[in-house]
Amino acid sequence: MSARDFDVVVIGGGSGGLAAAFRAASYGARVAMLEPGDLGGTCVNVGCVPKKAMWLAAELAERITLASRLGFDVPQRPRVDWPELVRQRQQYIANIHVSYQRRLDETGVTRVHQRGRVIDAHTVECADGTRLRTQHIVIATGAQPVRPRFPGAELGGVSDDFFALRRCPSRVGIVGGGYIAVELAGVLRALGAEVVMLVRGQRLLERFDAELADQLIENLRLQGVELHFGCQIQRLEQDGGQIRATLDNGTEQAVFEQVIFATGRAPNTRDLGLEQAGVVLGEKGQVVVDAFQTSAVPSIHAVGDVAGHVTLTPVAVAAARRLMDRLFGGQPQARLDYDNVPSVVFSHPPLGSVGLSEEEARKRFDRVSTYHSRFRPMLQALGEGELRTVFKMVCAGEEEKVVGIHLLGESADEILQGFAVALKAGITRAQMNDTVAIHPTSAEEVVLMR
Amino acid sequence: MSARDFDVVVIGGGSGGLAAAFRAASYGARVAMLEPGDLGGTCVNVGCVPKKAMWLAAELAERITLASRLGFDVPQRPRVDWPELVRQRQQYIANIHVSYQRRLDETGVTRVHQRGRVIDAHTVECADGTRLRTQHIVIATGAQPVRPRFPGAELGGVSDDFFALRRCPSRVGIVGGGYIAVELAGVLRALGAEVVMLVRGQRLLERFDAELADQLIENLRLQGVELHFGCQIQRLEQDGGQIRATLDNGTEQAVFEQVIFATGRAPNTRDLGLEQAGVVLGEKGQVVVDAFQTSAVPSIHAVGDVAGHVTLTPVAVAAARRLMDRLFGGQPQARLDYDNVPSVVFSHPPLGSVGLSEEEARKRFDRVSTYHSRFRPMLQALGEGELRTVFKMVCAGEEEKVVGIHLLGESADEILQGFAVALKAGITRAQMNDTVAIHPTSAEEVVLMR
Repeated sequence: MSARDFDVVVIGGGSGGLAAAFRAASYGARVAMLEPGDLGGTCVNVGCVPKKAMWLAAELAERITLASRLGFDVPQRPRVDWPELVRQRQQYIANIHVSYQRRLDETGVTRVHQRGRVIDAHTVECADGTRLRTQHIVIATGAQPVRPRFPGAELGGVSDDFFALRRCPSRVGIVGGGYIAVELAGVLRALGAEVVMLVRGQRLLERFDAELADQLIENLRLQGVELHFGCQIQRLEQDGGQIRATLDNGTEQAVFEQVIFATGRAPNTRDLGLEQAGVVLGEKGQVVVDAFQTSAVPSIHAVGDVAGHVTLTPVAVAAARRLMDRLFGGQPQARLDYDNVPSVVFSHPPLGSVGLSEEEARKRFDRVSTYHSRFRPMLQALGEGELRTVFKMVCAGEEEKVVGIHLLGESADEILQGFAVALKAGITRAQMNDTVAIHPTSAEEVVLMR
Repeated sequence: MSARDFDVVVIGGGSGGLAAAFRAASYGARVAMLEPGDLGGTCVNVGCVPKKAMWLAAELAERITLASRLGFDVPQRPRVDWPELVRQRQQYIANIHVSYQRRLDETGVTRVHQRGRVIDAHTVECADGTRLRTQHIVIATGAQPVRPRFPGAELGGVSDDFFALRRCPSRVGIVGGGYIAVELAGVLRALGAEVVMLVRGQRLLERFDAELADQLIENLRLQGVELHFGCQIQRLEQDGGQIRATLDNGTEQAVFEQVIFATGRAPNTRDLGLEQAGVVLGEKGQVVVDAFQTSAVPSIHAVGDVAGHVTLTPVAVAAARRLMDRLFGGQPQARLDYDNVPSVVFSHPPLGSVGLSEEEARKRFDRVSTYHSRFRPMLQALGEGELRTVFKMVCAGEEEKVVGIHLLGESADEILQGFAVALKAGITRAQMNDTVAIHPTSAEEVVLMR
């Protein structure tokens, strides 16, 4: 083997690719990573991280309003210096880039600042024509936002454009009803924009428990977000400094400063040479992999959004680590179990969910019982906030095994993780109730549900 | 039986007493509750609830400081209108009183606004001389702060006096190193007071994991609290509007506007006629009870702080409910399991703990492994906050059963509950690591500890 030979070549420097590279290197594998852009992929650059930063700022704005009602010398409607906020957010992200690069250097991963293309089962070609021979190839190129097709759609932006905003727009139309639409709507509203959500279907968050999704709609309305369901855009037109949207049957119009599409994401599998190399792609362009993340070509694997299964950063990271444990760590059965993956929507307040919704549970089990807690957290009560918390537990069978936990309320993002561990471990409702509560918290209501 | 006969007479209207009364009434028992003062006991009136309200305000103050650094139009050092804050806190508490009284009325509990005294195994005498015959008696009179004995000690206050403060004192000496001392110090400092902690021993929070207790000291110092260990007060003297404390060997002096003792609490068992009725009291005056909350007299039971075992509100509530399940609910084996009770200290940031400290685990098990995570939460990083988070997991045995989880950091109060359920269910480290993380949160670091 020449100096350009590797044990694994990772195409893509996002969370999944980085996790694969670091884990493989930890086993002494010779690793190359091809990434022409910034390290960290969607999550770090135009996803979880800047989203959470903006969400934290939005939460601060809401907290300041509550503080003003409790007697603090702060404005009831605080304003943020958006460029300053974005500057600090981007500094935080730049620090992550530096730390990733440092870690690649320290662990001896060869970083190639170029796109890669698969030539065959064991060869990757860099954009400059250099060919890398390798035992394994990991595709970790992620996904990107999809823009709908109708006249004038180019006048709207996608989530990437949200992160490029240099000031808070005065009035925004958000197209979509998934978690990205919900998150952008909440942040923009809390930071001062008028927000209108244009949702094609009849509800938000199709895959979440319907009861909590309904409460989420109410929360958005309390927050001042305008929601329209069963609503499609026919066309967008420039109208002076504004964008005019024509809706549905053409009779309704609305005007926005910005329109943002949150209408789905597509796997980045174009121009990678995958199909020529024998890799099978699915309907949406995703790399079809088996339970061990391996494609139709035994030496080519895929992790993360490009494999299109559960498109969450920690899933990509966990799948990548287990794949490397299997390939280089002497753990031939290592693979990620995709059951009971918890996730959180960073709405205001956030929505966390693990396991089955009530609807799903009723399809799978004869005997389903549900338990609820509805309350106003102390800070909301003290500050005359309107937001209620709704917790829901779904149990199945006579022994009341906990199969779903759904939390909408302050701190739901932080509360869920431990309960996800407990649910995955197979606890029953009785075990839930046997744990002593921690008072006064929101989390205690989960173990006190009746 | 006459109209004054009951199935159970509950002496004390705190959390434990109320839980006993409501649960007994739910089984159709005839219940009387004797409480001369406000319902809700220490927790609602001079404990958990007003403490949490002040802690929430302190958290708001810290959040506002971070917000000012992120570009919000708020002061870097916000000031709170203390009387307004206290007014809203007390309104919140008044609402709880009303809701408790309404629930007593609705469930048909006879509320007697008087002190009670045990005459014999089945008789309680009210202050006005009325005698109540009853099958069972539940002592739920709680505990109260202890004031140390030295010259001038009457010049200092206790935690009850903290809640009576009508403005933020300029400089406070807090005597003690337990959780109440830590909590009061944090709140007063965050709301603008100079705070000095005078601790007799060499560390804080004797029963918590030493590593986290050490980090807590560092956090308090970063917050601006002055700490003195191995320090005892000889005497207090009035000095104009100030209180002068003479310390240790008499050579050191310090001056405070307020001195607050957080030097322990004693069970309220005086003048209850308990010993004459045959109830055995322990060294500290607590009612000695068996694992079923029953005293030396089979018809007299005690729950909560007066029984002095684990003095936490949810423990009192859970013990009271199970006692009533046993006496009136047809569950002869019902009792509270005191193992693995989680608890949280509302420091800044909070400290949560369940199971064994590393020290305790090493005493009990041959093979102990520990895992850590140290990081700066995103909001702290963005707002240039100094506070780091430290998480620690203690495992025992070859299978690495999780026997202790210790969390010091933002949201630790809300994160812990679910992990407490998982720990009590007996999970292993592998099960912890098999749960997919929720990104980006602090809680995810618990399942990612290595």
